[in-house]
Amino acid sequence: MGIVAADISMSLDGYIAGPNDTLEQGLGERGERLHEWVYELAAWRSRHGLPGGTTGSINEQMDEAYKNTGATIIGRRMFDIAEGPWGDEPPFHMPVFVVTHRARGPLAKQGGTTFYFVTDGIDSTLAQARAAAGEKNVGVGGGASVIQQFLVRGLLDELHIHLVPVLLGGGRRLFEPDSPPYMEFEITRVAQSPGVIHLSFQPTR
Amino acid sequence: MGIVAADISMSLDGYIAGPNDTLEQGLGERGERLHEWVYELAAWRSRHGLPGGTTGSINEQMDEAYKNTGATIIGRRMFDIAEGPWGDEPPFHMPVFVVTHRARGPLAKQGGTTFYFVTDGIDSTLAQARAAAGEKNVGVGGGASVIQQFLVRGLLDELHIHLVPVLLGGGRRLFEPDSPPYMEFEITRVAQSPGVIHLSFQPTR
Repeated sequence: MGIVAADISMSLDGYIAGPNDTLEQGLGERGERLHEWVYELAAWRSRHGLPGGTTGSINEQMDEAYKNTGATIIGRRMFDIAEGPWGDEPPFHMPVFVVTHRARGPLAKQGGTTFYFVTDGIDSTLAQARAAAGEKNVGVGGGASVIQQFLVRGLLDELHIHLVPVLLGGGRRLFEPDSPPYMEFEITRVAQSPGVIHLSFQPTR
Repeated sequence: MGIVAADISMSLDGYIAGPNDTLEQGLGERGERLHEWVYELAAWRSRHGLPGGTTGSINEQMDEAYKNTGATIIGRRMFDIAEGPWGDEPPFHMPVFVVTHRARGPLAKQGGTTFYFVTDGIDSTLAQARAAAGEKNVGVGGGASVIQQFLVRGLLDELHIHLVPVLLGGGRRLFEPDSPPYMEFEITRVAQSPGVIHLSFQPTR
């Protein structure tokens, strides 16, 4: 059985989206700034059907993490925001489980991505994602609420934070008070690529 | 003229003190956890009149930064909390300027630390600290409010954050909304020592 790993970009002041986010501007004001670093990576571009991009150590790590992942879990809000931009061929190319309160049948897209809408909670979502992933890992793509729920329940094996050196001054925080109330981590990666710091942590239980 | 550099320990969820802080427990619940890494450093121990401690790259960087600093600025709350614990010989061994609304004459302690209480604002405090520091740097020791004021006014040349891999779940945040509203930094240091990640940034104006 694989591990469960969350991967997310965060500003220095702790936000994963900027102020005044809406369904149309899901990342809020200047929130796109948090993802600029990834658009240049060859691994990201290839998943989006784009040529070229930068290679190197971080690109290889991202590519390997992606190849080792057999299913992804996301929140309902992330789905609502990104379904349009993702288009007919979303960049997952694997089963994606959406944590939601709205029942809906599976939604198959081109390129191997099928969205499954799970209405009976985090534990059931994880069980279904594990089954779909087989020996591979389960990725937790966000948003903040889903990652917090995984942390609170002790379900996360690894947390990868890409720290972008900007202050957004407001928006959606990755960590809200008491979500969880207290937790310690072991540092498992500290790396840098242009304009971003890559940090990995494992909860120490 | 030297630079103006802030130096502070922060939890992964962005707090510089834990929940429910009081004058008696100024760092709040588990806030001391953020400073454990520094107590082991030879540079810190020597300033506190203690023998031994760990050496190495980070210790040398901290020691050099300290030796290049000619005056320190702190907030009134930090003074109130720490004056007792600092004892008769505070660990600064230099002039310390306290940003406050309460007028008070200079307070000379043993070992070269004199506290000056400045009631006419940040700009005046910095001018006095610069004059006292001469060719050396001015350090900004915290708390969060003072560092935010320096950021908002564009008075900070360097920001050193020691990121401790814990979630405190509440407390005092280093970065509050709109303090400042938006800001970009260049990454100037990414380093690791046991249980802490050392990050340095320069505002890009």
